[in-house]
Amino acid sequence: MTTLVKLGGSAITDKDRAETLDGASLDSAVDAIANALERGDLEELIVVHGGGSFGHVHASEHGVTTTDGSTDVAAVHDIHTAMKTLNGFVLSRLLERGVPAVPIHPFSCATRGVDGRLTLETSPIDTLVSEGFVPVLHGDVVAHERKGVTILSGDELITELATSIETERIGLCSTVPGVLDESDAVIDRIERYEDVAHVLGASESTDVTGGMAEKVRALLELDGSAEIFAVEGLSAFLAGVNPGTTICGSSLE
Amino acid sequence: MTTLVKLGGSAITDKDRAETLDGASLDSAVDAIANALERGDLEELIVVHGGGSFGHVHASEHGVTTTDGSTDVAAVHDIHTAMKTLNGFVLSRLLERGVPAVPIHPFSCATRGVDGRLTLETSPIDTLVSEGFVPVLHGDVVAHERKGVTILSGDELITELATSIETERIGLCSTVPGVLDESDAVIDRIERYEDVAHVLGASESTDVTGGMAEKVRALLELDGSAEIFAVEGLSAFLAGVNPGTTICGSSLE
Repeated sequence: MTTLVKLGGSAITDKDRAETLDGASLDSAVDAIANALERGDLEELIVVHGGGSFGHVHASEHGVTTTDGSTDVAAVHDIHTAMKTLNGFVLSRLLERGVPAVPIHPFSCATRGVDGRLTLETSPIDTLVSEGFVPVLHGDVVAHERKGVTILSGDELITELATSIETERIGLCSTVPGVLDESDAVIDRIERYEDVAHVLGASESTDVTGGMAEKVRALLELDGSAEIFAVEGLSAFLAGVNPGTTICGSSLE
Repeated sequence: MTTLVKLGGSAITDKDRAETLDGASLDSAVDAIANALERGDLEELIVVHGGGSFGHVHASEHGVTTTDGSTDVAAVHDIHTAMKTLNGFVLSRLLERGVPAVPIHPFSCATRGVDGRLTLETSPIDTLVSEGFVPVLHGDVVAHERKGVTILSGDELITELATSIETERIGLCSTVPGVLDESDAVIDRIERYEDVAHVLGASESTDVTGGMAEKVRALLELDGSAEIFAVEGLSAFLAGVNPGTTICGSSLE
């Protein structure tokens, strides 16, 4: 069974400076992953990372979002190349720590129909996982019927992978230790969106791929649960503990 | 309808020097493509390139072929990264000449089953072509069930694309002006392998992905015809003329 880990773009990059890593935070996430694999805590692993200051800057410059497309080849290259650069940083740090990480670029294997519905080809990912590799995917541009290309976020990749691959656990590594209530305390479990709508309304950010509200809404639709925590919680999550907020998907209702 | 063009690895790189382009030859191929698109000779185009001195050196160092696999993550990275570098050179020259070229990396969208049978996800390629882009694929490593990764050649990509995408014409740009007979004259048409077996036996090279014999055998299995010519013939091919050898696939027999 496969563990799915999302490294949030804001968690591993410096969101205020274009194309700048948060090296310390990335190192800490990579250490947590390498240690968990060494300890044998994980059977199989897929990593997805977001765009942070690599993808979002270019997406916003070209006016490309998850729904607003572009047919400008420069938009494709600026966004895709920046995301490959970030992917290269993540990969090289994982490789240095002995993790058999390999890149999967969603632009090559995903597409959206006219209605925006995503199709992601997961056979290469499946086979690579069975062969002992750790595929590392990233937010990207994606071919979109009649719109050119649009943005595919790391969060959307996670929910898509969760529906097509048999996953054991799903963890989203954010900049916050979980979903926070009115007094900034971590909410332990979320089972219905209505219960937290009043606190999530405010956290909606300008992030082109949606903030915490969108994340919670999407994870609630999964069959099974997912966990949201900060980088500091990744080690605990990989060891089997839930360090942040558990989002209980529809099958557990 | 889509035109499929393969730029042979030996045609665009210096096969005798590791990771070295044949810049003049690549420029000439890129010029032919850019001019044909400007003239409106082509409706839709997909380009595939081989590995030449970029892919083959690393494949051979790691002992990886189309059938001998590796589970070593260093093999994946050495081969895949070298092929991405070559793909980057091809893309940047096409972009400079105004061709809306975008990269598709087969490692992200192809896989082999236990029997070695290839599955290539073509929806992203299809959608990109309809949206006005020119996808540029390349020989690559590919996840192979129970073998780790094996090599996927540019020629195999061409035959796979030809079976899954509605193609108008298929052209393979080689280092020779076509399939040559005993006196080195270009054979105009090939309809049965037996007719040319005696001249193709000798052209088998050490290329890990097979030489002219394998190319002809695979193209003969296609529904429709394909053309083999040298870089100097690409312009004529794109203008609708057949400058080299026509391989007549099974439906034309």
